[in-house]
Amino acid sequence: MRTLTVDLGDRSYPIYIGSGICQQKALFDEAIHGKQVMIVTNDTVAALYLDAMVTMLSADYQVDTCILPDGEAYKTLDTYGLIMSSLLQARHNRTTTIIALGGGVVGDMAGFAAATYQRGVPFIQVPTTLLSQVDSSVGGKTGVNHPLGKNMIGAFYQPQAVIIDIDSLATLPPRELSAGMAEVIKYGLICDAEFFDWLELEMTDLMALESNKITEAIYRSCLAKANVVAQDEREGGIRAILNLGHTFGHAIEAELGYGKWLHGEAVAAGCVLAVDLSWRMGSLSEQDVSRSVAMFEAAKLPVLPPLEMTLDSFVERMALDKKVLDGSLRLVLLASLGDAMVTSDFPIDAFEACIVDALEVGKQASLA
Amino acid sequence: MRTLTVDLGDRSYPIYIGSGICQQKALFDEAIHGKQVMIVTNDTVAALYLDAMVTMLSADYQVDTCILPDGEAYKTLDTYGLIMSSLLQARHNRTTTIIALGGGVVGDMAGFAAATYQRGVPFIQVPTTLLSQVDSSVGGKTGVNHPLGKNMIGAFYQPQAVIIDIDSLATLPPRELSAGMAEVIKYGLICDAEFFDWLELEMTDLMALESNKITEAIYRSCLAKANVVAQDEREGGIRAILNLGHTFGHAIEAELGYGKWLHGEAVAAGCVLAVDLSWRMGSLSEQDVSRSVAMFEAAKLPVLPPLEMTLDSFVERMALDKKVLDGSLRLVLLASLGDAMVTSDFPIDAFEACIVDALEVGKQASLA
Repeated sequence: MRTLTVDLGDRSYPIYIGSGICQQKALFDEAIHGKQVMIVTNDTVAALYLDAMVTMLSADYQVDTCILPDGEAYKTLDTYGLIMSSLLQARHNRTTTIIALGGGVVGDMAGFAAATYQRGVPFIQVPTTLLSQVDSSVGGKTGVNHPLGKNMIGAFYQPQAVIIDIDSLATLPPRELSAGMAEVIKYGLICDAEFFDWLELEMTDLMALESNKITEAIYRSCLAKANVVAQDEREGGIRAILNLGHTFGHAIEAELGYGKWLHGEAVAAGCVLAVDLSWRMGSLSEQDVSRSVAMFEAAKLPVLPPLEMTLDSFVERMALDKKVLDGSLRLVLLASLGDAMVTSDFPIDAFEACIVDALEVGKQASLA
Repeated sequence: MRTLTVDLGDRSYPIYIGSGICQQKALFDEAIHGKQVMIVTNDTVAALYLDAMVTMLSADYQVDTCILPDGEAYKTLDTYGLIMSSLLQARHNRTTTIIALGGGVVGDMAGFAAATYQRGVPFIQVPTTLLSQVDSSVGGKTGVNHPLGKNMIGAFYQPQAVIIDIDSLATLPPRELSAGMAEVIKYGLICDAEFFDWLELEMTDLMALESNKITEAIYRSCLAKANVVAQDEREGGIRAILNLGHTFGHAIEAELGYGKWLHGEAVAAGCVLAVDLSWRMGSLSEQDVSRSVAMFEAAKLPVLPPLEMTLDSFVERMALDKKVLDGSLRLVLLASLGDAMVTSDFPIDAFEACIVDALEVGKQASLA
């Protein structure tokens, strides 16, 4: 097992990464302070892991469960309301601990429920997808979607602990493994060129879930994220670099309807657009671009936006993104491979050209 | 104008109290940092004060409004969803400022919206009822009700400023003025015996809204609350004393259905029960009890629980209250007049007797 700490003063917490650790009760005991536990999960994950967790914890706690329907489509205020009802019906008080057992959707919603149940109760993240293990379970972003925008409702709220059991990746659909790998690659691009080089060498083994290597990749990803979050908990500045590819990606997700492309897939295509724009601005070489594209392809991820998109739909969707401050669109771009920056200072024609060219390449490819 | 500060480190904020101050634009300019403002209010308050505020602020800001139906019955997740939709439809970004213009329901909901819109935006409280001026607008409690419990969904989230214009009390229905006075009296009971003595002398003038005296009463109330909140922002300890009468009161509100009794009315009857229980435990004299009862009566408030209540309904409702920690009910009681304490150490027969006797007195009175 590997351990690291997200350093946030009195809101600091540990991240544990290893094989079989979601059956190590001591890790949970350390993070649970009261006598009540509510496990929030979804029907897919429940079938695989819920019984074992309930059995393990029932020895010492009042354990209740809230099983949500699986999928981003259910990441809504209505589903959030269901979690609140479950807590109240089972009479959970202010000392209850919520455990989020599942992927990013479960973690975001259970975390938001923890942030807002009786004005805040402790919670533990037990992420079961690669995407949630390397991204959403770390850093305290919680929330739900609104029909007019993704993650528009939420709170910054830190967990007591993150317990990452890599064994859960064995049951993950290949498409979701790839989606998670998009965020892993992102960390290399934004802040760790050495990690990027390592990923290039190890991608085949990583996609095959070689145990030591996947543990290392998750550890390095969480370390990168923990570092950035410790510097900027509430995303006032540097934390925005974690959104490389996300502003483009959110536009894709919103335009297609949430869930059609996985978040990581949209991020992959978005990262390639951001890399391309960085190249047009002279920060990256052609080789940097082709290495990046090849890496996403090796992880079986899309590197072009979907055919349904147009320049207008990108612009319209991106204007509502949270990264828009007082009217000017800020983007995360690369100053070099392994070094990201946030800027609203980019030529609009280069921005438009990178989208138009990518759409054209996609169109030609679909006709071929 | 009087000013005081709620001292919470980097979350500190000023409270301004005076006549006509909601037309002092400089107070708003200081608290608004971006270019967008969303005024959340209800239809009753909108008819009285919204136009003037929109006119004043439109000179410098993009001003949008969200007008909710008036009443505690609308303090729900659904109404909260409406605020979120208004913000998104008008394309408010993360630098928007929300202004809560109205009573406690508007303040709690707009505050919760501010706490959770794009994971938190600034907000300003402009409370227009006495209750919200002396209680809910100060201290950062925000939230909505759930069918299974009042304020069960919410967050601690501090405003940028609280702007209390006493002129708005002139349009307040007399029953709501009384309800607010219940909380004013509460401050005397829990932490300021001298203020209690003063209130006893001045209650007639206060109920007639004598300008200097009502300003003083609001100032002393806010000062008491700010003091307690500064010691215990998230209600881990001493802040609970602010809930004198509230655990009983919440049981009354929940049993009757929210809105039948005003919150302050339920708190008044609840305070009398807590005072009575404190007397049964030997902390207060008979005279303390009769002075307290007379004070609530002078403010035209109920001093007995409603006839619909029973001992069982109190016990059942109080068991779900947030003050229940790991199964034991904690109550706020008085060690002396002007000195409250939180305890779960009270004789259950005294607790039951104070409820049973009050219900019996109420029954006899209704038959007389």
